[in-house]
Amino acid sequence: LIKLHHNVNSSASFRVRIALKLKSIPYVSIPHDLDTLTQGDASYLELNPQGMLPTIEHDLIVITQSLAILDYLDELFPLPPLLPSDALGRVRVRSLFEMVAADPHPLTTRRVGRQLKRLGHSQSEFLTWQRHWISEGFDTVELCLSQSRDTGKFCHGNSPTLADIAVVAQAASARRLGVDLARWPVLQKIFQFCLEEPAFAAAHREGGTS
Amino acid sequence: LIKLHHNVNSSASFRVRIALKLKSIPYVSIPHDLDTLTQGDASYLELNPQGMLPTIEHDLIVITQSLAILDYLDELFPLPPLLPSDALGRVRVRSLFEMVAADPHPLTTRRVGRQLKRLGHSQSEFLTWQRHWISEGFDTVELCLSQSRDTGKFCHGNSPTLADIAVVAQAASARRLGVDLARWPVLQKIFQFCLEEPAFAAAHREGGTS
Repeated sequence: LIKLHHNVNSSASFRVRIALKLKSIPYVSIPHDLDTLTQGDASYLELNPQGMLPTIEHDLIVITQSLAILDYLDELFPLPPLLPSDALGRVRVRSLFEMVAADPHPLTTRRVGRQLKRLGHSQSEFLTWQRHWISEGFDTVELCLSQSRDTGKFCHGNSPTLADIAVVAQAASARRLGVDLARWPVLQKIFQFCLEEPAFAAAHREGGTS
Repeated sequence: LIKLHHNVNSSASFRVRIALKLKSIPYVSIPHDLDTLTQGDASYLELNPQGMLPTIEHDLIVITQSLAILDYLDELFPLPPLLPSDALGRVRVRSLFEMVAADPHPLTTRRVGRQLKRLGHSQSEFLTWQRHWISEGFDTVELCLSQSRDTGKFCHGNSPTLADIAVVAQAASARRLGVDLARWPVLQKIFQFCLEEPAFAAAHREGGTS
């Protein structure tokens, strides 16, 4: 059985919950409090020395980093697949995933907020910083989605992929941070469509009420 | 033929050059100047709306985001593989890759430096910021490498993988930024070992003299 260490408001945790629900993989949910983690939770740090979320435990192995977890789940539980069946589709989806997960997302995390606070910035300045990077990332994603004939009900065609997982998790955070998604109509439409899908909705509900 | 748009000092560009050299894939090198890109290079922005490096052009398609490019190259040119042949090995390597590429690296890029400057920080404060995140990331990588029996001459066994590609590219940047790698002996040893390998050495040389 898979154990999922996650947090209700962590975007990376949300990504993994979506994949677990899409693939109907049963799991034990172990929610963590981010403030407790920040203060140093020894038993969790033993599991994940970065002290970040999410982590999954599967049999005797421990896996950290959300994209590595997503690829692992996709390999072990291939249906439904999180990547298209053709090489060009796969690279488009991976590229969209990274545009969100590798560029803006790491800049908006709490550890960055703590560092900015150490440099003398207020919580409100951090919020502006988060909105800036999310918006810049979504500008690119919107351009890619609106210019491609591969965009369908989901980011790539009419089945959910890694790209939707990244976009939906980031858009949920964005909304919580007061970013108006109307600036990116194609992205917003996909986000709303996804949230009506049972797997996304269930993963979102489990994440709280944001 | 593949065209590689890259920069000599960009860590993400270096990653892709290593993969191209490891697989002996011929390519046309198109180096870009980061200052020119920052000021807005219309023809490049048409290719890559994020204005980031690297980008590859292959036949009629354009691919951005280094990890998406690496996965694409690994699929089209499978030998030598950039991932281990077993699922547990693959997830370990992907996780190590992300520990560098998804967490610290995006925090150290020039666009972040520009944003910090807008917030009133000096170049020297940005340098401290870069060193902080690289060091924090390497602390985790070192722990993972030193605690695992899977670590060999390379990050995973005795063949180069995506993990080495991320670590070497980041370590080269770290050294350029004056970070002393001696704090992470296992990582440092792998870095030095890799730089003696012809593919890594050639990719590094092409990146300049750092």
